[in-house]
Amino acid sequence: LIFSNKHTEKLNWTREAAIAAENVASTSCSGHGRAYLDGLITENGRPICECNACYTGPDCSVIVPNCAVDADSGNPMFLEPFWKQNAGSSSIMVAGWHRMGYEFEDGSLISKQLENVIHKLHETVGNANTSNKYILFGSGSTQLLNAAVYALSHTTYSSSSSTKVVASAPYYPVYKSQTELLDSKKYKFSGHTSSWRNKTRNDKFIEFVTCPNNPDGRLNKAVLHGKFTRHIYDLAYYWPHYTPIPAPMDEDLMLFTLSKLTGHAGSRFGWAIVKDKAVYDKMVEYVDLNTYGVPRETQLRALKLLNVVVRGDKKEMFRFAHTVMRSRWEKLTEILSTSKRFSMEQLPSQHCAFSKQVRPPSPAFAWLKCEADEDKDCFNVLRAANIIGRKGAVFGVENRYVRLSIVNSRDDFDLLQQRLQDLVSKDRSIVQAVTSL
Amino acid sequence: LIFSNKHTEKLNWTREAAIAAENVASTSCSGHGRAYLDGLITENGRPICECNACYTGPDCSVIVPNCAVDADSGNPMFLEPFWKQNAGSSSIMVAGWHRMGYEFEDGSLISKQLENVIHKLHETVGNANTSNKYILFGSGSTQLLNAAVYALSHTTYSSSSSTKVVASAPYYPVYKSQTELLDSKKYKFSGHTSSWRNKTRNDKFIEFVTCPNNPDGRLNKAVLHGKFTRHIYDLAYYWPHYTPIPAPMDEDLMLFTLSKLTGHAGSRFGWAIVKDKAVYDKMVEYVDLNTYGVPRETQLRALKLLNVVVRGDKKEMFRFAHTVMRSRWEKLTEILSTSKRFSMEQLPSQHCAFSKQVRPPSPAFAWLKCEADEDKDCFNVLRAANIIGRKGAVFGVENRYVRLSIVNSRDDFDLLQQRLQDLVSKDRSIVQAVTSL
Repeated sequence: LIFSNKHTEKLNWTREAAIAAENVASTSCSGHGRAYLDGLITENGRPICECNACYTGPDCSVIVPNCAVDADSGNPMFLEPFWKQNAGSSSIMVAGWHRMGYEFEDGSLISKQLENVIHKLHETVGNANTSNKYILFGSGSTQLLNAAVYALSHTTYSSSSSTKVVASAPYYPVYKSQTELLDSKKYKFSGHTSSWRNKTRNDKFIEFVTCPNNPDGRLNKAVLHGKFTRHIYDLAYYWPHYTPIPAPMDEDLMLFTLSKLTGHAGSRFGWAIVKDKAVYDKMVEYVDLNTYGVPRETQLRALKLLNVVVRGDKKEMFRFAHTVMRSRWEKLTEILSTSKRFSMEQLPSQHCAFSKQVRPPSPAFAWLKCEADEDKDCFNVLRAANIIGRKGAVFGVENRYVRLSIVNSRDDFDLLQQRLQDLVSKDRSIVQAVTSL
Repeated sequence: LIFSNKHTEKLNWTREAAIAAENVASTSCSGHGRAYLDGLITENGRPICECNACYTGPDCSVIVPNCAVDADSGNPMFLEPFWKQNAGSSSIMVAGWHRMGYEFEDGSLISKQLENVIHKLHETVGNANTSNKYILFGSGSTQLLNAAVYALSHTTYSSSSSTKVVASAPYYPVYKSQTELLDSKKYKFSGHTSSWRNKTRNDKFIEFVTCPNNPDGRLNKAVLHGKFTRHIYDLAYYWPHYTPIPAPMDEDLMLFTLSKLTGHAGSRFGWAIVKDKAVYDKMVEYVDLNTYGVPRETQLRALKLLNVVVRGDKKEMFRFAHTVMRSRWEKLTEILSTSKRFSMEQLPSQHCAFSKQVRPPSPAFAWLKCEADEDKDCFNVLRAANIIGRKGAVFGVENRYVRLSIVNSRDDFDLLQQRLQDLVSKDRSIVQAVTSL
């Protein structure tokens, strides 16, 4: 390998990959799509655009008529423009021989540099106290949810052998489906916290506390407080994008994910902050046996991205993210303010220690309720208006509720906004027509 | 993003990352180490070398005296020089905005291009028949082992509800530890196949068949054949590096991993080839709920690496890998041929359909046996000679056996060779001394 001086224009072994990446990136997709290095190519080798939903054509310039807008997935594509604007500082060149071995030099599966920048990140944002706590990585917080259930059910000692796993409805559905997946003798999903309040006695409980809550954006607190109750704080959305940050969390087991922080959901990178050594050790054991750690290229990329997040005044990405989310929430609020048929969650303005000001809400999801008696199936009411949400039943509550994702691409949001506007206007005309009879 | 023509020297947003990568790569570590992009740096910003075991100093030029050689881990670093030689064609530039979303355009978690190159790879090598079969990806074959157990235990119907999971000793220890991890009601690790031969009747069995076997290199075949017996073929080592390939495997459920093919163990990328749709669907369900797929940057990297493997005459990497492994095996065989105290597995020469010739063995591990009555603890016999192996008990057999890894870096192998030579020579001198009394 020939040394490449910082001041020379010549690149050696990185040249081919750099040119390939720039060529793909230069593919024009009309602002409604993008081409990727591993995407399909045309017969003569040109990259094919992957269009946003409801756009089509070779350059994504054609709108699909009467297309149903996808507000189902919480795909955080609203952050993509930030990374396109910061392409120079956020890209990585991964050599073919980069970290081929199973372990890092210290024998661990965790990049020390990445661990350091995560400490710095939380200190900068002030959303979690990481001092004197252990950090481990997972394949998204997805993997860490079950790792935490495994660890807590093996490190909490009471006369009962099985642990009840619970959450407050409406709750993120993976808590239930993942806990039930392997039908363990050690733990069992046991429904809503509300059924167990003041009934915890000698039983072992693990309570998922989601703050802000997915789907309704509330800053949930723990409900159960028995002697053998342990809590998993899922803080995926506890970032200034989605909520004012009143104070740093300082809980025994906290989970975060890159997906909702930088928008890199496809990278499957999450981390746990754990106070107790025994719990941490059990979580490490789980991740070791389950997947033997997080890919080295993912850790390298997370390091690069987080270094962009914490550089300079350390607020650039947060300004971008909050501005988008706040503006989207304001638009939805305005549209629905004139509706009697639909309502959304009401969230308070609060002091945010990160921005040092009182901030209005800016949640990731609209938690819509159909107020009319006959609209018991709110999902279908919206579906008829070409809006795909996620049914209340998925979150453990009635189907009068629907979650609408507002973290998707701008195209998705614009279409959602338009469809909701049409729906509300139509209802209003009907109400006015009826009233004027 | 400004278009960068293939013929101009100017790079735009990829420049910073390319220069950073070339600078790190140019760090001199005396051929006994390397510096990485995410490694530690000195106070004045210079990358710090990460040295091979038993080497130290700022540029890895100092040998650590009396250092114990690590032949424990099956870390496939012997392939690193190949990727350094092919740095230009095997590196990737990952843009900050590369595939941020949860899913690919078709809604799956799997790169179609990568799936295609995997089909092509198996066709080229002739080690597995993939036609009319499904392919899914996992975080190493590690994740897929348990995904397969989950899927087979849920899709095999008999009067018994629990499935017995078994393997032929000596076996890869993760089969046991992973099956036992979550204490499922659906399946239970139930020991060696030898205990169940002709006793399968109406019970449900899942048998791991490892071919070639880890640790002893044998081309294992299925032992149990009950009506409700299913097999998981772990083919991690079924590549021309490690064994002659007599014919393509054509089993219902086959697992492979990038770790042992290209040496990228740190990338945690494996794949399953599955015949039955119901089994495939259950495996997909497992991976979805467990980690929600394999990181996009890992898939992009695997695509790039495999494209190097299948390009040109499609044999370049295999030639390199086989040459190294065969030479190492010959050296070990020669050293141990003069020893009465130690023996190694005897493997036959066989016709290899890939190389179209009869090939001698070239396994990934030496499966050493201490032959002397008093050497019941073979691990400690070797440990006293500064060689760290892996005890037989880990593989479900007596400690008279020890696995020695020979896939590590050249430094590791050279030191292992020297230590074994010393040990065998010493024994011979003692024997000669005793004989001459």
